[in-house]
Amino acid sequence: MIIVMSPSATKENLKKVEEKIERSGLSAHLSVGENRTIVGVIGDKKRIGELEMNSLEGVEKTVRITEKYKLVSREFKADNTVIDVRGVKIGGEELAVMAGPCSVESLEQLRETAAAVKKAGAQFLRGGAFKPRTSPYDFQGLGEEGLKLLKQVGDEYDLRIITEIVDLNDVELVSEYADILQIGARNMQNFRLLQAVGHGSKPVMLKRGISATISEWLNAAEYIMSAGNDNVMLCERGIRTYETYTRNTLDLSAVVALKELTHLPVIVDPSHGTGRWQMVQPMARAGIAAGADGLIIEVHPHPEQALSDGDQSLKPEKFAELMQDVKKIAEIMGRK
Amino acid sequence: MIIVMSPSATKENLKKVEEKIERSGLSAHLSVGENRTIVGVIGDKKRIGELEMNSLEGVEKTVRITEKYKLVSREFKADNTVIDVRGVKIGGEELAVMAGPCSVESLEQLRETAAAVKKAGAQFLRGGAFKPRTSPYDFQGLGEEGLKLLKQVGDEYDLRIITEIVDLNDVELVSEYADILQIGARNMQNFRLLQAVGHGSKPVMLKRGISATISEWLNAAEYIMSAGNDNVMLCERGIRTYETYTRNTLDLSAVVALKELTHLPVIVDPSHGTGRWQMVQPMARAGIAAGADGLIIEVHPHPEQALSDGDQSLKPEKFAELMQDVKKIAEIMGRK
Amino acid sequence: MIIVMSPSATKENLKKVEEKIERSGLSAHLSVGENRTIVGVIGDKKRIGELEMNSLEGVEKTVRITEKYKLVSREFKADNTVIDVRGVKIGGEELAVMAGPCSVESLEQLRETAAAVKKAGAQFLRGGAFKPRTSPYDFQGLGEEGLKLLKQVGDEYDLRIITEIVDLNDVELVSEYADILQIGARNMQNFRLLQAVGHGSKPVMLKRGISATISEWLNAAEYIMSAGNDNVMLCERGIRTYETYTRNTLDLSAVVALKELTHLPVIVDPSHGTGRWQMVQPMARAGIAAGADGLIIEVHPHPEQALSDGDQSLKPEKFAELMQDVKKIAEIMGRK
Amino acid sequence: MIIVMSPSATKENLKKVEEKIERSGLSAHLSVGENRTIVGVIGDKKRIGELEMNSLEGVEKTVRITEKYKLVSREFKADNTVIDVRGVKIGGEELAVMAGPCSVESLEQLRETAAAVKKAGAQFLRGGAFKPRTSPYDFQGLGEEGLKLLKQVGDEYDLRIITEIVDLNDVELVSEYADILQIGARNMQNFRLLQAVGHGSKPVMLKRGISATISEWLNAAEYIMSAGNDNVMLCERGIRTYETYTRNTLDLSAVVALKELTHLPVIVDPSHGTGRWQMVQPMARAGIAAGADGLIIEVHPHPEQALSDGDQSLKPEKFAELMQDVKKIAEIMGRK
Repeated sequence: MIIVMSPSATKENLKKVEEKIERSGLSAHLSVGENRTIVGVIGDKKRIGELEMNSLEGVEKTVRITEKYKLVSREFKADNTVIDVRGVKIGGEELAVMAGPCSVESLEQLRETAAAVKKAGAQFLRGGAFKPRTSPYDFQGLGEEGLKLLKQVGDEYDLRIITEIVDLNDVELVSEYADILQIGARNMQNFRLLQAVGHGSKPVMLKRGISATISEWLNAAEYIMSAGNDNVMLCERGIRTYETYTRNTLDLSAVVALKELTHLPVIVDPSHGTGRWQMVQPMARAGIAAGADGLIIEVHPHPEQALSDGDQSLKPEKFAELMQDVKKIAEIMGRK
Repeated sequence: MIIVMSPSATKENLKKVEEKIERSGLSAHLSVGENRTIVGVIGDKKRIGELEMNSLEGVEKTVRITEKYKLVSREFKADNTVIDVRGVKIGGEELAVMAGPCSVESLEQLRETAAAVKKAGAQFLRGGAFKPRTSPYDFQGLGEEGLKLLKQVGDEYDLRIITEIVDLNDVELVSEYADILQIGARNMQNFRLLQAVGHGSKPVMLKRGISATISEWLNAAEYIMSAGNDNVMLCERGIRTYETYTRNTLDLSAVVALKELTHLPVIVDPSHGTGRWQMVQPMARAGIAAGADGLIIEVHPHPEQALSDGDQSLKPEKFAELMQDVKKIAEIMGRK
Repeated sequence: MIIVMSPSATKENLKKVEEKIERSGLSAHLSVGENRTIVGVIGDKKRIGELEMNSLEGVEKTVRITEKYKLVSREFKADNTVIDVRGVKIGGEELAVMAGPCSVESLEQLRETAAAVKKAGAQFLRGGAFKPRTSPYDFQGLGEEGLKLLKQVGDEYDLRIITEIVDLNDVELVSEYADILQIGARNMQNFRLLQAVGHGSKPVMLKRGISATISEWLNAAEYIMSAGNDNVMLCERGIRTYETYTRNTLDLSAVVALKELTHLPVIVDPSHGTGRWQMVQPMARAGIAAGADGLIIEVHPHPEQALSDGDQSLKPEKFAELMQDVKKIAEIMGRK
Repeated sequence: MIIVMSPSATKENLKKVEEKIERSGLSAHLSVGENRTIVGVIGDKKRIGELEMNSLEGVEKTVRITEKYKLVSREFKADNTVIDVRGVKIGGEELAVMAGPCSVESLEQLRETAAAVKKAGAQFLRGGAFKPRTSPYDFQGLGEEGLKLLKQVGDEYDLRIITEIVDLNDVELVSEYADILQIGARNMQNFRLLQAVGHGSKPVMLKRGISATISEWLNAAEYIMSAGNDNVMLCERGIRTYETYTRNTLDLSAVVALKELTHLPVIVDPSHGTGRWQMVQPMARAGIAAGADGLIIEVHPHPEQALSDGDQSLKPEKFAELMQDVKKIAEIMGRK
């Protein structure tokens, strides 16, 4: 941490700053400039993380140099984490593709979708049984019935299952049916839920909060890992900006940033990221070209009848096209 | 809902749009313009709320006219809701002031703060026992021990207690000690938690999510009210923007907007809203001048020793000054 | 400037960093921590301002400690700047109120408005003769004819004139008719225009760019002052955020921040700041309560016939009400 | 335009709305719903564009259905515009690559860069002679001397020249030396400058404003085209968001959106878009995969000595690598 003293700070102010640093078991290191004195704080990262200095008189501002997260950082572990989901590897050479409807609606819908996405090359079936919806009057999902359908169809078509968990009491329940637990954007900082899935061992996909910084996102992942679960992957799904043409702004530079900062696998969601089915294919290509380890895509056999997110769902034939494109880009990126 | 057809839409496309509307038990109303046909959807608000039309061919875009929330809206209930918290009324003529430390740290800290804020005119003691912190390594609060201290000190100084709840299993526990349950910004769309406090009867203060639209915020309040709890108040606490000089951007126009759209009381939090103690007093004045029903302010007897949010906490003497200012503005606004 | 070296930086990397600093006539000051070395750069502010270090190998990031602006800063000049506009002072004890239509449309419109705003207590008549409009097909203003009308009506009603300048070749022309030159949000970083008005002596009101940081805004003001014109005031007019209920988000904490950082007067524009006439009065009150030196308000005798910005214009009777409110708040703030 | 009447609107209110529409030479079309009446406005697009209705009593809100721009829209011209710049085509099958330093500094610097980028496959040399800098104390460019160097080196290496214009009086001057005039992000809504380059015939590259919506950007392009110049291309260079890890957030979905909405060529600038040289290569790949017609990249032989933007400049050997990658992606996209 760097503490910038105000030009009008007194010697007394500076002394109190140094004292607080030392009382915290850290050491202060002064640089006296023409107008300002700058104090560097040296010592244990965790203690520096807890230090609050802005409330002291004479302090103009403080600048944090080191991030608080540790286990998720590439500094801590240089090699990419590869997560094995019943034989399918995420974060390695292979591209991971998760596809399926926003909400599980019926056995027919799920079977039709599963057949199509399997044929096109997806290894995972996605589908929501518990849906966090903006309005209490919107369709909230089929609940456990939906989980059962997912498992049944996943088994029939040899697809692994990824589905969202919204209630910290449901970890066991959802883990019975699903291969990957998804934490949605709205729950990225629902720390109790993060800890609950962290105490389990099922792989977790943590979506970026709607206006989360990369740093907050990695700290959220740290909640899961520090609770004991190493099988964490991150999913960029678009951030909130002033632009309204798209539902969100898919931030592909975050993929590149994550590849610098963390060893965890990174998935891109161009369906929520854009909110427009016409944009899913080009943005899926772009995501892989930016270096993502996989994609999660909404596919519905009849988008115009979907109970949710029909606007951003691809028809099976469009998804097959997308897979053709994406495979070519993946090859250039040195993937299988 | 208004459906704008693309200039290249065919008669067949239009027919399918009309059919879907009618199948949903609604009626379609056409306006044929020079370049585009526009379809108005008329009928039951709830059914319109569920209608998804963008995935149909020939549809350029759809525009929602009516909001999905109902119980929270001023259309539904014209008179201001006044919440009675053991004799102190929020949303009426009186200004509600909640003050205290970010985190409950000790009995001494709490007593010293309570004495000061009571004397300056606050009716509520705030303090966090369960703290949702960005990093798992930050101080997470004293838990139930903190709740007990809050209740004890509240009783001693005749202050009502407001404290945050972060776990849906804790509703009963926190309700034993607190007079108002606070839902923090990070949990604004933790719908399970909203439903849990909605099933109780304790007053709830719902903070705005860090990048929540006013519409999403009111829909979140609707989750609580539709579960049965009418005692809901809203708290503007700053939104995330590109500006980094302040921790958040306090959006006082939201106060004015809420007064148009809802009957629920509106509280302003200038401490989190700015993140800088120097700004709390002027922004508190501005909040009341904009029409807020109350304030929630971080006060700490020794901010430089605070375990969290020292940067934005006022010392007791500064808080007393603030109260002087705020009372004068409140009088101009026709409040007591 | 603080330079944070990467944990993997070599001694050779560090040496090159030190060499570049010294070659620039500055000195380097090292703090060697457990994981990272941090280099403080000490010396002439201007030279530090020009230093670019991120492209050197081993540099993780750099943090700028001092702002590049000087003349506009309160460090440079502690006392508030008071601008005398033909006897009316801006930035002193008196509140400055500028009111009038978005666009000058006709002599009648202008006279009717001027009579009303003068009576209610405004000292300045605002009105656009050159309008920067989003679309080339929108009304672009009456040009010089509009300037003449402004001057004529200003003289008739003893109101000073403020109007926007959009073309760097028009400084002389506009200066003939106007008392204050306004630089609009879209031109805040049109540096050639800033320099052009900086070479003159007419007071300038610099509006905040639609997504300008406070730092960029003050640097833009520095362009004007460094060209020789000291009579600069700043106008907060709302920033662009994700919220769409209001046209912009009026950032009143910027008023407080500017009062800390600069000696220049600060004006608030609640008309553009909200884009909704219903919100202008409460946000005008809030602006003054936050500490602004004045207001600029759109007033139109017949908003429903306005050629631009009718949505956010007040009728004269509403403006008179606003003035009543604002005067009471100004008194509390110690103003006349 | 759709006008949504408030539930409390009277018949008198509605009558006035209809009257204003008809007085404007347009016709009103009513849809009477359960709670609200909705008025569709039909007729001439330009007249609708000028209509302002929010200031009328009883109007809750208005929704614009059609954009105001025309010449730039794909509705107006379905085929892609291909701009011929002395034999090199932009917007056709060929990928256009513009590369070079942020600022022109010297003949040696320019020659070294030109040799390298030409060899790697670029057809255009970029370089700033007039630099719009945030602070008046930053390096402002070499001016006409810089233009001369660009032309000389462009001729030597058979590279076309693109350079920024910041002053509306410089159109002739810059056109003498440059093949493409660049309008920077800060000047996107400097409408006088847009008109000035619109009156000429040199191709113009219009960068997106730092927080411009896609709609505002296309309206800005319409200013140029409506003044007579058809040779316009657009450049996505990142938008301002809350995320600070990158300098801007490169919005690649805008590329896809533009391909839907306009026939003009689209260029991507991953250098400004990220502000970090480490990210330029992956984001360049992603931009082409999203469908861009070309790239503009900062290349400097010695980034650590650059007078501006060294942080985001590539060394020649990194640029050569980038070109290898990009060519492979371009092939997949069906480009040469």
